[in-house]
Amino acid sequence: MSKIIAVNAGSSSLKFQLFNMPEETVLTSGLVERIGFEDAVFTIKVNGEKKTTTCPILDHEKAVSMLLEALVEHGIVTSLDEITAAGHRAVHGGETFKESVLVDEEVVAEFESLSELAPLHNPAGLVGYRAFKKNLPNIKHTFVFDTAFHQTMEPDSYIYPLPMEYYDQYKVRRYGFHGTSHMYVSQRCAELMNKHLKDTKIITCHLGNGASITAVDGGKSVNTSMGFTPLAGIMMGTRCGDIDPAIVPFLMRKTGMTPDEMDTMMNKKSGMLGVSGISSDARDIENGCKAGNERAILTQNLYVNRVINTVGGYYAQLGGLDAIVFTGGIGENDVVMREKICTKLEGALGVKLNKELNSVSRGEELLLSAPDSKVQVWLIPTNEELMIARDAYRLSGC
Amino acid sequence: MSKIIAVNAGSSSLKFQLFNMPEETVLTSGLVERIGFEDAVFTIKVNGEKKTTTCPILDHEKAVSMLLEALVEHGIVTSLDEITAAGHRAVHGGETFKESVLVDEEVVAEFESLSELAPLHNPAGLVGYRAFKKNLPNIKHTFVFDTAFHQTMEPDSYIYPLPMEYYDQYKVRRYGFHGTSHMYVSQRCAELMNKHLKDTKIITCHLGNGASITAVDGGKSVNTSMGFTPLAGIMMGTRCGDIDPAIVPFLMRKTGMTPDEMDTMMNKKSGMLGVSGISSDARDIENGCKAGNERAILTQNLYVNRVINTVGGYYAQLGGLDAIVFTGGIGENDVVMREKICTKLEGALGVKLNKELNSVSRGEELLLSAPDSKVQVWLIPTNEELMIARDAYRLSGC
Repeated sequence: MSKIIAVNAGSSSLKFQLFNMPEETVLTSGLVERIGFEDAVFTIKVNGEKKTTTCPILDHEKAVSMLLEALVEHGIVTSLDEITAAGHRAVHGGETFKESVLVDEEVVAEFESLSELAPLHNPAGLVGYRAFKKNLPNIKHTFVFDTAFHQTMEPDSYIYPLPMEYYDQYKVRRYGFHGTSHMYVSQRCAELMNKHLKDTKIITCHLGNGASITAVDGGKSVNTSMGFTPLAGIMMGTRCGDIDPAIVPFLMRKTGMTPDEMDTMMNKKSGMLGVSGISSDARDIENGCKAGNERAILTQNLYVNRVINTVGGYYAQLGGLDAIVFTGGIGENDVVMREKICTKLEGALGVKLNKELNSVSRGEELLLSAPDSKVQVWLIPTNEELMIARDAYRLSGC
Repeated sequence: MSKIIAVNAGSSSLKFQLFNMPEETVLTSGLVERIGFEDAVFTIKVNGEKKTTTCPILDHEKAVSMLLEALVEHGIVTSLDEITAAGHRAVHGGETFKESVLVDEEVVAEFESLSELAPLHNPAGLVGYRAFKKNLPNIKHTFVFDTAFHQTMEPDSYIYPLPMEYYDQYKVRRYGFHGTSHMYVSQRCAELMNKHLKDTKIITCHLGNGASITAVDGGKSVNTSMGFTPLAGIMMGTRCGDIDPAIVPFLMRKTGMTPDEMDTMMNKKSGMLGVSGISSDARDIENGCKAGNERAILTQNLYVNRVINTVGGYYAQLGGLDAIVFTGGIGENDVVMREKICTKLEGALGVKLNKELNSVSRGEELLLSAPDSKVQVWLIPTNEELMIARDAYRLSGC
């Protein structure tokens, strides 16, 4: 029996989940927030109960040693030797990492060199890895990349119609993100449909604060809405998604914004927040709609329009469709958004939602479509941590 | 009987066509190129034959007086008094002009104020108008806008998920272009299908050096691929179309390009030219494909991918589809591109092309789909000049 820890490190946070493998049972999970501050918050689940400690945690190394001590202290493990491998979420694998890898110094160097493509995420992932490596030096560590699942795309989906020198020199191309999630829910969907993955055409909608949609053909990503960066594609909580690229130089001339300020505006002040003027949270938008707020209603309509246009595009590219999967915070819980999206897809794609079932379904695996729907609609909670643990278990061989 | 002149003025060019209305017969057509130069070229069709003169034409006023003299000289009109109205292509009508208008000083002022949104096109249109106004002061002039047809879009198609202040302050929204063309071919398609326009769902693909696709529901544009500017949407001869907007600030930081230089790169050096490294002309790309040039093949695949994703998106938004129309230089003549696009649309949309017929059809109205195609595919040469003449005839009342 192996205990495997799955880790998702941000610049000031660290999420973890401990699995018994190959049983895939969750032993515990938790979160460290506000790393670097005097009032950092450490949370761990013990026997289903959340235990929270507020104390100074000045770096990731301290966060990791604290969480490992807590595992022993609460009797989740008897000794740290029981932890046989660790899997780390690594956001950007570029074109180098087409699948998960065991980490060695060469991998670290290559991953570090990709930081330019993900300046916020890759360095944070490395800090998390190094903190675990220091505390658990003798186990095998695995990197699981957000981009890897999309490395199966063909050039006609990943090349941008820009001068090719920008691809050659700066690796400007579509990478796509949320790959671990899209892979998990597409595989799970095939299982739930009792179909061989290779015989399925599935569109996976990962709709959270960040959001992306992927066309999955026979288990392989053939197109995805995020692009060179996670800004692209459909609108999100605070990100604009695809816009006329000429708007960028236009607004820079008009407002005097710098490239960095444009990045910030498009990533942090746009999307649901920018249109509604209320909030980046779909629940607040829904409440605004109920109260008759016109900009909230516009926000929801805009969001639905972007989703159905992307889904329709992938339907054409896939040349057919077995199922649409909803996952992520909005996909799993926002019953109104799901109903609006599916209703709009009825005319062209023959999607028929079981509206009663949809209206009470949140966060559990469920077939949401009516029996006579031409395309099945599934609600499948994502589980990136499990995918990370699986790869760490498989690659470490223990 | 009225003789109406339809005019399309560029910054250094002027195209014209003279119609007999309401018969809609073309009396002549022609072109002045290199206005402002010593070696300007004036071309006019007389009895089906092109007559070309090279001489100094230093401004649009001179170009117009020359063409009017030529009309009399060649006996196309006996007297200029026979010309009862002029229609001018006016690119950007903003949110003000939802349809064609008779030009007065107020209209000129408003149109001029929209130059900011179309800094290359609107001033050229005005120069053309003024040159005709000076030469033909007593007739009525009409502006026909490229954007007007798309003013029926709902906000969920035209608002960008950016902070709303940019819409309020700078009118940043999707406008769409090629409207006169999309309107003409969608109306003509309904006629050819023997259907009432209001009962039709049509996707019009205007594929030329500039290219846009429009979803037309009951004769009204509900979405279109060009956006705030004609850069957006599918890839074009030299334009990139939609890309991850974060690429703009990324490349500015990397290369030191200014906003204007980015604009130029995305508008003039991208698209087919940028990807192929060969040419912006689809015919050269096709020849490259035949010769086995890999980047030419990639260019064509990329183009097809962008078109089918857009068509699929609009299919979903329309909630059904009666016909797809091909028009514009590529749409009317590129048999290989049409076949590739339609073949890719077979799986999802049930499009079945009559491949033999398609392979020999260029520039003439024709049903290209097989009888059992779920969606009809039409080749319809566009005729913006006729639409301009019709509106000029209708609005001038003569």
